[in-house]
Amino acid sequence: MTRRVYNFTAGPSMLPLPVLKRVQEEFFDFNGLGASIIEISHLTDDFKALVHDTEALLRELLAIPEQYRIVFAHGGGVMQFSMAPLNLMARTAARKALFVESGYFSQSAAAEAGRYGTAEVIASSRETNFDRIPPFDPAALDTAAAYLHITTNNTMVGTRWHTFPETGELPLVADATSEILSRPMDVSRFGLLYAGVQKNLGPSGVAVVIVREDLLGHALPSTPKMLNYAQLAADHSLSNTANTFAIYVANLVLRWVKGGGGLQAMEDLNERKAALVYDALQRHAGFYTPHAHPAHRSRMNVTFKLPAPELDDAFVAEGNAEGLYALRGHRFFGGIRASLYNAMPLAGAQALADFMDSFARRYG
Amino acid sequence: MTRRVYNFTAGPSMLPLPVLKRVQEEFFDFNGLGASIIEISHLTDDFKALVHDTEALLRELLAIPEQYRIVFAHGGGVMQFSMAPLNLMARTAARKALFVESGYFSQSAAAEAGRYGTAEVIASSRETNFDRIPPFDPAALDTAAAYLHITTNNTMVGTRWHTFPETGELPLVADATSEILSRPMDVSRFGLLYAGVQKNLGPSGVAVVIVREDLLGHALPSTPKMLNYAQLAADHSLSNTANTFAIYVANLVLRWVKGGGGLQAMEDLNERKAALVYDALQRHAGFYTPHAHPAHRSRMNVTFKLPAPELDDAFVAEGNAEGLYALRGHRFFGGIRASLYNAMPLAGAQALADFMDSFARRYG
Repeated sequence: MTRRVYNFTAGPSMLPLPVLKRVQEEFFDFNGLGASIIEISHLTDDFKALVHDTEALLRELLAIPEQYRIVFAHGGGVMQFSMAPLNLMARTAARKALFVESGYFSQSAAAEAGRYGTAEVIASSRETNFDRIPPFDPAALDTAAAYLHITTNNTMVGTRWHTFPETGELPLVADATSEILSRPMDVSRFGLLYAGVQKNLGPSGVAVVIVREDLLGHALPSTPKMLNYAQLAADHSLSNTANTFAIYVANLVLRWVKGGGGLQAMEDLNERKAALVYDALQRHAGFYTPHAHPAHRSRMNVTFKLPAPELDDAFVAEGNAEGLYALRGHRFFGGIRASLYNAMPLAGAQALADFMDSFARRYG
Repeated sequence: MTRRVYNFTAGPSMLPLPVLKRVQEEFFDFNGLGASIIEISHLTDDFKALVHDTEALLRELLAIPEQYRIVFAHGGGVMQFSMAPLNLMARTAARKALFVESGYFSQSAAAEAGRYGTAEVIASSRETNFDRIPPFDPAALDTAAAYLHITTNNTMVGTRWHTFPETGELPLVADATSEILSRPMDVSRFGLLYAGVQKNLGPSGVAVVIVREDLLGHALPSTPKMLNYAQLAADHSLSNTANTFAIYVANLVLRWVKGGGGLQAMEDLNERKAALVYDALQRHAGFYTPHAHPAHRSRMNVTFKLPAPELDDAFVAEGNAEGLYALRGHRFFGGIRASLYNAMPLAGAQALADFMDSFARRYG
C-alpha cells in the first residue's frame, strides 16, 4: 500500500478507500468475464445489469419517487447547463427560465440557457462576492416561466441552500453537483435535479440526472440526440457507448454509502467534519477570515483567507508537506478551500483543524 | 493474475495488457501525489501536463500537421454526429452537408446533421445491406456544401475505405472511431477527423477530434458550450471537468503504440491478424459466408454468418468456452463479428482461425 494523503481537492475528488481497493482488485476481471470493466461492451447483460443496479441504488438512497426517471449523461454538470434549457425551455410559451445567481456556476448556467431563450436572473449575491444565498420572494416568481434554476451548493465560494424554495407549479431545477448524496434531499420538491458525478460519486465525465416524467417531451428541435433526456430515459442511458468506468465506480460508491448507513449517516458525519473546520476558523477569528456568511455555510467546501497572500501560499505548502493535499482556493477567489466530501474521513477534518491551530499559533 | 480471454468485442474493447497493468499498479498513487488519477483535479499541473503529452503523442504518431487542433470531447463518436454539423454546417451559405452512407453509424450521422441543415446522401450501399463502400464521382460533388462526411471503418458490417476520396476544396469529415491508430492516415486529406476512444485508445466516454484551424469559428448560435470545437481548442479540452481517466488511459495506450513501432508497425500486424481470419473464411467458403465484399474488407471487424442461426449460437458459445470472448455479431445484423483492434495479439487471431477450422470440421 502506497502513501495516501487527506485529499481536500474540490473535484474530481477523494473517493472511499474500499471502493478504490475493489476497483484495483478486480481490474483485470469483471464478473469473472476474463476482461476488465473497461474492456466490455455497454450492451452486455453484465453492464446493463450494472446500470440497472446503479439506478436502483440511487432511487433507494435518495428515496426518488416513481414518477422520476434517472439517466446518466455524458459531460458532467456543465453539459447540463445546456441540456436543461434544451429540454425544458420550450415547456411554456414564454421561452424564459429564471435563475438565482449564487456563484460562478450558476452564472454559467444562466449564460448557457440564454442561447435557447430568456435567462432572467431574479436574485444575485454578486455584489457581496457570492458570500451568501441571495434572498427572494417565491410568491413573486413569474409562473409563466419554464423553470427556476438554483445551485444547491456553491463549490468555489463555499455556500449552500440549507432549505429549498417552495415554487408551487413552477418546476425547480437544481444543480447539486457538489453535494449530492451528502445529505437527504426531498426529490419531490424538484422538477429536475442533476449532478456531475466527480465529487461524491466517482470519476469525471458523467452527470446523474433525475427528472420528473411529465417534464419530458419538450426538447427543442435542435437538441442533439445525446443531450435529449427523453431519448436517454427511453434507452436507459445507453443511447450510445456510455462512460462505463464512471458508472461502474459510481455503483461501488453507492454501495459504500448504503453500507455506511445511507444519507442521514452521511449528513451526520459531514456535519461533524464541517464543524471541526468551522470551529477552528472561529478559534482564530482574527487570523482566518471565512468567506461565506455564517448562515449560508456549505458543509462540503469551507473557504477562508489568511491575513496575506504569502500566508495563503505557506498554508498550502506546509499543509501539503503534512499530507493535507490541495488546499488552495479556486483561482477566481484565491485563499484556501477545504473540500470535505463524503469520502473524507473524520480524521482528515481533524488533521486539518489541528494544522489550522498550529499554523495560526506559529504565524498569528 | 486472473484469467484473460481473447476479447473480440466491438467496443469498449480489449486493451493492451501492459497498459492495464500500469493502471492497476499506480491506481492509488498517480505521479507520487498520494492520490489516484481519478481523485485529482483536471486543473492540476499534473493533469494539464498529461493532456499536453497526450496531444503531443497523437500529433507525433499520426503526423498531424501544425494547422490542426486536437481536442478531447465528451460523449464519444455519437456526440460528434451532432458536434460536426453544429460547428461546420454554417460554414457555407448552402447550409448543406453531404454524406456517404456505408452503414448504420453513417446513417445516424446524417440523421443528426439533418437537425441543423440539409443532410444529402450522395451515395449509399443500403440496397446491398452495406456490404461495401458505395462508389461515387468526387468530381460531381456540390462544392457549395459545407463538407462531405464518411465513416472510414464500418464496425457493424466490417467494411472500410482503403483509400480516401479526393474532395478538393470541400472539407472531408471522417468518423474513424473503429480504426484510428490501426494504420497510418494522411491527416492533411481531412478537414475534420474524429474518433470515439473506446476501441483503439481507451475507456469510453470521450472522442478525439482533429480539426483544421481554418474550419473553426462557424458554430451555430445554439451550439452548447461543451460542443463547441473552438471553445474546447482554446481551453485545451479543459472547458469543464474532462474525463480524466479516459485521457489518462489513452495516454498510456499511445505510449504503448509508440513503443510498438508506431502506426506502420500496427498496420503490418493488423494485416497479418486479419489475413489469418479471412483466410480461415476462405478455407471453409461453403460453411462460413463473409458479409463484406472482398474489395472492401475491414481489418478491424471481420463479419460472417454460419449456415444457420443455431450454428451462429453454437459458434459463439463454444468459442466463449475456449476463451474467445464476444464473437456475436451486432444485433442489427446477426451472425458473427470478430473485432481485431490493435490490442488483440497475433496469437488471438490465430486462436480464432484454429477454432474456425475445428468448428467447420465438426459442423460442416
